[in-house]
Amino acid sequence: MALRGGIDLGGTKIEAIVVDDWSTVLGSARRATPTEGGPPAVTKELAAALGAAAAAAGSEPGALAGVGVGSPGQIDPGQGTVANAGNLPDWSDPFPLAATLAEQLGTRVVLGNDVRVAVEAERVLGAGVRHPSFLGVWWGTGIGGGVVLDGKLWLGRGSAGEIGHVVVKLGGARCPCGRRGCLEAYAGRGAMERRAHKAENDGDKTKLFEIMEKHGRTRLTSGVWATALERGDKLAQSLIDEAVEALGAGIGSVVNVLDVGAVVIGGGLGSRFGEPYVERIAAAAAPHLFVADRPPAFLPAELGDQGGAIGAALLVDDRA
Amino acid sequence: MALRGGIDLGGTKIEAIVVDDWSTVLGSARRATPTEGGPPAVTKELAAALGAAAAAAGSEPGALAGVGVGSPGQIDPGQGTVANAGNLPDWSDPFPLAATLAEQLGTRVVLGNDVRVAVEAERVLGAGVRHPSFLGVWWGTGIGGGVVLDGKLWLGRGSAGEIGHVVVKLGGARCPCGRRGCLEAYAGRGAMERRAHKAENDGDKTKLFEIMEKHGRTRLTSGVWATALERGDKLAQSLIDEAVEALGAGIGSVVNVLDVGAVVIGGGLGSRFGEPYVERIAAAAAPHLFVADRPPAFLPAELGDQGGAIGAALLVDDRA
Repeated sequence: MALRGGIDLGGTKIEAIVVDDWSTVLGSARRATPTEGGPPAVTKELAAALGAAAAAAGSEPGALAGVGVGSPGQIDPGQGTVANAGNLPDWSDPFPLAATLAEQLGTRVVLGNDVRVAVEAERVLGAGVRHPSFLGVWWGTGIGGGVVLDGKLWLGRGSAGEIGHVVVKLGGARCPCGRRGCLEAYAGRGAMERRAHKAENDGDKTKLFEIMEKHGRTRLTSGVWATALERGDKLAQSLIDEAVEALGAGIGSVVNVLDVGAVVIGGGLGSRFGEPYVERIAAAAAPHLFVADRPPAFLPAELGDQGGAIGAALLVDDRA
Repeated sequence: MALRGGIDLGGTKIEAIVVDDWSTVLGSARRATPTEGGPPAVTKELAAALGAAAAAAGSEPGALAGVGVGSPGQIDPGQGTVANAGNLPDWSDPFPLAATLAEQLGTRVVLGNDVRVAVEAERVLGAGVRHPSFLGVWWGTGIGGGVVLDGKLWLGRGSAGEIGHVVVKLGGARCPCGRRGCLEAYAGRGAMERRAHKAENDGDKTKLFEIMEKHGRTRLTSGVWATALERGDKLAQSLIDEAVEALGAGIGSVVNVLDVGAVVIGGGLGSRFGEPYVERIAAAAAPHLFVADRPPAFLPAELGDQGGAIGAALLVDDRA
């Protein structure tokens, strides 16, 4: 039985796992995503995380059948490159991640879109078991998504699922992608952090950055947001309220077009906030649903924090 | 060879045709949609229009294999009822349109959603021949749509395609559907007429209503808008500019989620304005496209004014 590796490369953290043929996690490890040093520094951390996960599974990277990586940015699976990963340090030009990491690990490496592999994991092992058609919304540093229709991930011409760049407010806030009014401009953790900085500079009081420093973080992680909300931080509440409202509008729009039976909420913030926020997002979507008396089921991603890495490991099967 | 009838029931006009097995139009007739008298008055005009089309084809309604009707509102094809047709007079409760019309025509009647049958006609006989996956956007009294994926109309749980109720502006203008910020609130002909009335009442100068009266109309039809634009009417221009901007945002959003290869623009205003406006809508969508260097093809509906009626006639095949 050959084990497989899976790595979820996020804007904040790297999650690595080693699984068996039934996608059972035998070992895992987590590292912070480097905020400097560019693609080489990130690749080194990916190798270290996967090495630790393999060790925890009683194996080693070179003995694996392969390693899948779910990555942000523009993936070219054939070339094995990643470009324009805005949430990773100095990562604009295409970088040969597959070849570089394969050399460090001693096994082959397959790349996929970070969110699409997480949605694919839900399709195979999570929510998709009961819902053949669903919209996956990954609420994290950015907002990603995936569309599953009749049991198949719909890719269109290769890039379907970008719900983060659905326009929720014409002429609205600037998005990290450079456009205006995108859902991600209101609900992405990266955009929310910029808004929090700006509000603090404009004189709003907030404990967000104090909590960040106390947690030893350099960014407003999901945990920092959660702590600020628990402490009743007004700015954090108002930014999260806006995010939930934008998520409701964007999701409502897509449900009106696709009429899927379920919406699955994952991602760093989605997993951290869990069920109560899934319900809040469902309530925010309700006023926008054209068929109001038959809303889709709103569900938290079932595979939790490790879903992205489990989905990445599924890439190895696909390419075997 | 049995002929088939098709009727497109619009908010402004009724288009009836009679076709052969190859969907060639052998006879056609057009009537204004009654603005009062409720479902019975509308049904009577449907029967009269179809009768005239059958006569033009050298046949009569009772000799047809059946008649398909593309209707606005909530269709129950099994029950043969239409409810909540907001753009038709006094038509809220379910009305047994199929049975009532069948009795008047002497042949069976099949109902379908007005826009979805028009998109289906494009799939079979128009743009779909070259584009297996496309988004149909029907720009008329309301904004309807249809999603064709891999050569099949995607219906979801039965109501997919409602691109008119994609949210383009959170907290924005009130839509005829009662919600806020929908695409239709900015680009639907019905909503634009309300906005024009309000602007005139608020003191804006416009020739729209003068032109309407001179044309012997009681509504701002596509022709009235076209004439006002030709005459350089400032209010008409500004409302149409807003409509185009909203269409660009709504279409851009859906393309980001589905990554289809084409967008087909039809409907009363879409057909009337044609190619130049299809290009304007493409330009308005461009800034919102996540994959900016590979936009979908933007195409006018190929079947023109009669597409809806041709698609309605296709319903008869489906149910034979």
